Amino acid sequence: MAYRLTAAEFISSGLTVEQYAVSLLDRIKSRDDAVQAWAYLDPEYVLAQARELDKVPKEKRGPLHGAPIGVKDTMYTKDMPTQYNSPIYENHAPVVDSGPVTILRDAGALIFGKTTTAEFAAVFTGPKTRNPHDPNRTPGGSSSGSGAAVGDFQVPIALGTQTIGSVIRPGSYNGVFAFKPTWGSISREGVKISSLILDTIGFFARSVADLQLLADAFKLSDDREPSTFELKGAKVAVCKTHIWPQVGQGTVNALEQAAKLLREHGAEVEELELPEEFSQITQWLRNVLDGDGGISFLPEYNLAKDKLDPYLLGFVENSTNLSKRDYLTGLDGIASLRPKIDAIAGRYAAILTPSVHDEAPEGISNTGSAAFCGMWTALHVPVVNIPGFAGSHGMPIGVSLVAPRYRDRHLLNVSQVVGKAFAADGRNPVS
Amino acid sequence: MAYRLTAAEFISSGLTVEQYAVSLLDRIKSRDDAVQAWAYLDPEYVLAQARELDKVPKEKRGPLHGAPIGVKDTMYTKDMPTQYNSPIYENHAPVVDSGPVTILRDAGALIFGKTTTAEFAAVFTGPKTRNPHDPNRTPGGSSSGSGAAVGDFQVPIALGTQTIGSVIRPGSYNGVFAFKPTWGSISREGVKISSLILDTIGFFARSVADLQLLADAFKLSDDREPSTFELKGAKVAVCKTHIWPQVGQGTVNALEQAAKLLREHGAEVEELELPEEFSQITQWLRNVLDGDGGISFLPEYNLAKDKLDPYLLGFVENSTNLSKRDYLTGLDGIASLRPKIDAIAGRYAAILTPSVHDEAPEGISNTGSAAFCGMWTALHVPVVNIPGFAGSHGMPIGVSLVAPRYRDRHLLNVSQVVGKAFAADGRNPVS
Repeated sequence: MAYRLTAAEFISSGLTVEQYAVSLLDRIKSRDDAVQAWAYLDPEYVLAQARELDKVPKEKRGPLHGAPIGVKDTMYTKDMPTQYNSPIYENHAPVVDSGPVTILRDAGALIFGKTTTAEFAAVFTGPKTRNPHDPNRTPGGSSSGSGAAVGDFQVPIALGTQTIGSVIRPGSYNGVFAFKPTWGSISREGVKISSLILDTIGFFARSVADLQLLADAFKLSDDREPSTFELKGAKVAVCKTHIWPQVGQGTVNALEQAAKLLREHGAEVEELELPEEFSQITQWLRNVLDGDGGISFLPEYNLAKDKLDPYLLGFVENSTNLSKRDYLTGLDGIASLRPKIDAIAGRYAAILTPSVHDEAPEGISNTGSAAFCGMWTALHVPVVNIPGFAGSHGMPIGVSLVAPRYRDRHLLNVSQVVGKAFAADGRNPVS
Repeated sequence: MAYRLTAAEFISSGLTVEQYAVSLLDRIKSRDDAVQAWAYLDPEYVLAQARELDKVPKEKRGPLHGAPIGVKDTMYTKDMPTQYNSPIYENHAPVVDSGPVTILRDAGALIFGKTTTAEFAAVFTGPKTRNPHDPNRTPGGSSSGSGAAVGDFQVPIALGTQTIGSVIRPGSYNGVFAFKPTWGSISREGVKISSLILDTIGFFARSVADLQLLADAFKLSDDREPSTFELKGAKVAVCKTHIWPQVGQGTVNALEQAAKLLREHGAEVEELELPEEFSQITQWLRNVLDGDGGISFLPEYNLAKDKLDPYLLGFVENSTNLSKRDYLTGLDGIASLRPKIDAIAGRYAAILTPSVHDEAPEGISNTGSAAFCGMWTALHVPVVNIPGFAGSHGMPIGVSLVAPRYRDRHLLNVSQVVGKAFAADGRNPVS
């Protein structure tokens, strides 16, 4: 049962990298037909890498020594193909590591394989992957494989990217912790671009301790070392956002339960209604996405437009007739709200807000709505999905904690405590 | 003398691609010892590609058919190394095209070779390249090779990138047209990241017609098709900017002459003083550069910090003790000025402003100051360097024209007319 260990647990376990890798590969063998989280996985190569890592003398081992990590198939890996779930890039394997993979490899991580993605991490059509909690449901997207693989104990940690909700949503659907750090705080070198101003690297894990390990490797730091956090006396805001009317019963219940648990642990929980101007974000974000998509996918459009998803074709052909004026209004409007949300969020230990509409919907062709995530992505603030709740079909539901930009370490500290409160008292879907 | 043709002139010349390429290679052979503009150039491969292009049937030829282009060595090319002028990436050759190269290759361009760059396009230490007008002077940077190669008739057009002044400055120093389009309007896929919010793809050419060809290939478009521009009655602002006290006599004279020529052609030229808040850009830009550099170069720092320029080490080690708070103030402050400069610039046909302090300084170890460029880069507005003037040592000096964001095509139309006015009446350094 080594495969059930988190990365931090493995690192202090005394197990060899090979032993852990063997256990994970066994788990994958038994579960891959049902989940299909991998775009590329070579078990022999994984074992060879594991054995190499085991040979590294103790004093030369990195902080993530031997920690197996799934890498979303939108990031270059020098020893594996990078195919973006696009027929244009079938077997595409440039021999180069992306920035995040360079950092992880240098820290001693075991680059395990490539996890599935929606096409270019930019469409709502899902890949082959199924939700490990119910194969008839989507694991979410676009970081489908990363969310599912971590949720199914196939790897302890994985990398994803979020342009609207591609980290937080699969985090919620698969019942795991998911962390979207402050925009721009992690190198995106060699990571497929969808939108320069929205794309954000993110992490999946089954414990906040593992997110902390990753945050260390990527040198995320706040201006002040965050102090030890306790819920007693902490002020937490509940923000239902302007799209609350769209919410499903599962999330209504989860948010209510979450607020109740926080209160029971001594937190002061108050409702936060954002100023009216924040309701414009939905349209502004749409305009930025459409405009940026048209620029980002022009190379592929020119190369092979018949092989592009119609949604991406629409970006390049400007099917919404977006004007540059409206595009810039979106870009500038969102930018003007960023310092405002920092000031508002700074008044609380964290903002509690929905991760998703509800539990993962049925079917795998559509990856579900990212509407609740989009606002926070646009605002560049760090977000953690905290698992612990469930919908009417018993599927996992998480809730999001949000902090001001570059208070990532503070947010992780809060998440650690809140995560424990939810897991101890609420439903723990990763049991 | 085929090598003296612009790309547009070549395309309508009836010459074969091979004939043109042979002439350029001869030019390079005779000039390379003096200029050293290339990080990678394989003449045999260039000729082989040229012959392949000549075989393409007329009806299948792209709009840039056979146009030879130099590519800054910070952009992936699937058939050539990409080395960033960094010992870490010696002989680094991932088999993949960057977004801009994909678009150009698809349009029929002849990818000629890789032009030199300052290390990672991010330091002020120059590469081996010399100014073609005087080998004892810098060609500017960081797009040193692109500026020098176009200025020396070694290729008609070249790609560069600008994070502060890496396109406009070498444009001015080498006496060529240089165009930094609106930030984000061209795919940066596969282009080395220095700052997500500042890096911008740019072009070098010896005619505005060639810049128009490139703008067509990259599908740059304004909301309205710009009308035919004439100087008679056009309003042009002269903006000396808040750093004017730093200016050298060469640029003082160039800007004066430029304004005089515009007036003589019937333009209404008026001085524009930007609101006081714009003077904060210098410090804000510095903070954004430092913060972003720390994130962008962490992978290389971890890999081989002994092989990084000390300036880049400083970014990662935060040698300026930059706080996240000051970083965000810079990011948000600049963002708040973007709609304001659009509104101001929109009152004029264009803003005329210095490209550089003065003519190219002596020596090649330092690529010169980019201070006059940085503000416009940060503001994301399109800028064209118009050559036509000279400093006290006879070295080229250009001036910049600026327009609101996404009025790139309008700015090119204005530049076409202004460029002719300067070349006909002023000094033409590319004769």
